[in-house]
Amino acid sequence: MANNYPIGVFDSGVGGLTVVKELIRQLPSENIIYFGDTARVPYGIKSKETVIRFSIENILFLLKQNVKLICVACNTVSSVALPAIKNHFRVPIVGVLAPAAREAVYATQNKRIGVIGTPSTIKSRSYESQINELDSEIKVFSAATPLFVPLVEEGWVDTDVTREVAREYLGPLTNKNVDTLILGCTHYPLLREVIQGVLGKKVNLIDSAKQVAIEVKRMLACEDLLNDSAKKPRHKFYVSDNPEWFTNLAGRFLGHSVKDVSRAEVG
Amino acid sequence: MANNYPIGVFDSGVGGLTVVKELIRQLPSENIIYFGDTARVPYGIKSKETVIRFSIENILFLLKQNVKLICVACNTVSSVALPAIKNHFRVPIVGVLAPAAREAVYATQNKRIGVIGTPSTIKSRSYESQINELDSEIKVFSAATPLFVPLVEEGWVDTDVTREVAREYLGPLTNKNVDTLILGCTHYPLLREVIQGVLGKKVNLIDSAKQVAIEVKRMLACEDLLNDSAKKPRHKFYVSDNPEWFTNLAGRFLGHSVKDVSRAEVG
Repeated sequence: MANNYPIGVFDSGVGGLTVVKELIRQLPSENIIYFGDTARVPYGIKSKETVIRFSIENILFLLKQNVKLICVACNTVSSVALPAIKNHFRVPIVGVLAPAAREAVYATQNKRIGVIGTPSTIKSRSYESQINELDSEIKVFSAATPLFVPLVEEGWVDTDVTREVAREYLGPLTNKNVDTLILGCTHYPLLREVIQGVLGKKVNLIDSAKQVAIEVKRMLACEDLLNDSAKKPRHKFYVSDNPEWFTNLAGRFLGHSVKDVSRAEVG
Repeated sequence: MANNYPIGVFDSGVGGLTVVKELIRQLPSENIIYFGDTARVPYGIKSKETVIRFSIENILFLLKQNVKLICVACNTVSSVALPAIKNHFRVPIVGVLAPAAREAVYATQNKRIGVIGTPSTIKSRSYESQINELDSEIKVFSAATPLFVPLVEEGWVDTDVTREVAREYLGPLTNKNVDTLILGCTHYPLLREVIQGVLGKKVNLIDSAKQVAIEVKRMLACEDLLNDSAKKPRHKFYVSDNPEWFTNLAGRFLGHSVKDVSRAEVG
C-alpha cells in the first residue's frame, strides 16, 4: 500500500460531499476518490439487506481504484450496513456514526441528546447504542426527518416551507430539553441555520463531517499512510448516474465547483 | 397466450397503484401482477439511460411471470424510456402518456394545457410532443414538481406545507390561463384537492389512470385476450425492496389494503 494512494469515499448520492469538504480542509495533500450511487439514491428509505448489498458493491468499486482507506460518508450505510460488513475488507473502513456519537457525548451537559436522520438510520437505533455504550446515563431522543433530503436537493434551504417542515419534525424534540442534536445525515449541515432557528441558539448541533475527518487522519497516521507528497492532490468523482445533476448540486455541498465527474456502473 | 394470464403492471415504486386501482375497477375479472422497483425508487431524477436499463429489467421480470400485456404505470418511464423500447417485446406495452395526452386534448376549450411531473418527465418534453401531434395549435406549459412525491410518501397530502409547496410550484401556471392540467405522475392524484385548491375549480385535472385502464381494456379486447373466467381474480404484488414499507403505503393509493406482497430481485 503506497501513501499516495487515494482515500475512497462513498455515499448514496451527493450528501457525502459535506464530508469530502472537511477531508480536503484537514488533509489537503490527500488524493480522494468519491463515489455517489446516484442511480439508486436515496438509501434512507430502503431495507437493511438492500443497503448492505449496495454498500458492498460500492466498496468493491472503490477497492478496484486502489484506495488505502474507505470513508463511508453516509449515515444510513454507517448505521445499518457497516456493523455487518466493516471487517470484511482489506482496507480500514471509517463510518460517520462513532465520531459523531463521541462528539455528542463530549458536548452534552444535561445528558439529553437528540438525533435526526433518515427513516432507516433512526429505525436502526444505532446512534442510541453507540451513545449509551459511551455513557449509559444519557437519554437519546430520535426523530426521522425524511423530507429534509429532498428539500436540500431542491435547493430550498432557506424557505418558509423548509422552516415549517423543520418546526413540524423538531417540535417533539424541543419539548425534550435536549442540549445537543446530532445532524445524522450528511445533507443536514446545509439546513444548520433553519434547524438552529427552530431549536434555539443554546442547542449544540453536531455535524459528523469534522469528526470523521479527524478520525480518518488519525487512522492514516496510525498506519503510517498519510500522503507526504508535495504533488497537487487529485480529487476524482464517480457517480452511477447523472453526472450533470451531481455537478450542479456539488458546489452547494462542497463550497466550490467540481470538474472531474465520470459515470461508473456498479452492481 | 391464454386469456387468464395476468396483466403485468410496473412502476418505480408505489405510485402505480393508482393505475391498478382503476384497472381493478374497469377490469374486475383480470389477474394482475404488479412490480414496484422500491430498491431503486425514485426514477424521476435519474437519466434516460438509467431509466431505460431499469425498465428493461422490470419488463423481463414481468415476462417471466407470463403476463399477456404490460402496463407501464409510471410517467417517467412512459416519457423517457418507452419510445425507445416499447416495440421490442413479445407482448403489447401500454404507457400512461398517450391516454392522458388524448384526454387533455379532448378536454381543453382554450387550447392551453398545463403539465406537471418529475424533473425527468418534464425534461423529456414528451407530453408536449404527444399533445402537439394531436393538435399543433395547443400551447403546453410545463412545471417540474419534485417535492410532490416525497410529500405524498410522507403522507402529507392535506397539510399547510403541501399547500405552500403547491402554490410555489403552480404559481407560474396560474398566470398562463390553462384550463386543463395533466397530473403527470401516478402519485399526484393523491394531491388532487390541494392542486385544485391552488388552480381553482374551473381547471380540469387529468389523471392518467382512468384513461390508461380504458386503453388496456381496448387492447385486450382487440387481441381477444380479455379474461372471461368466473374465477376470483388474483392480484399479486412484487417489490425489489421493503415489502413492509410498500404494504403500509399501498392502502393510501389503492383504496384498500394489500396482502400478497413479496420481495423479488431484478437487475
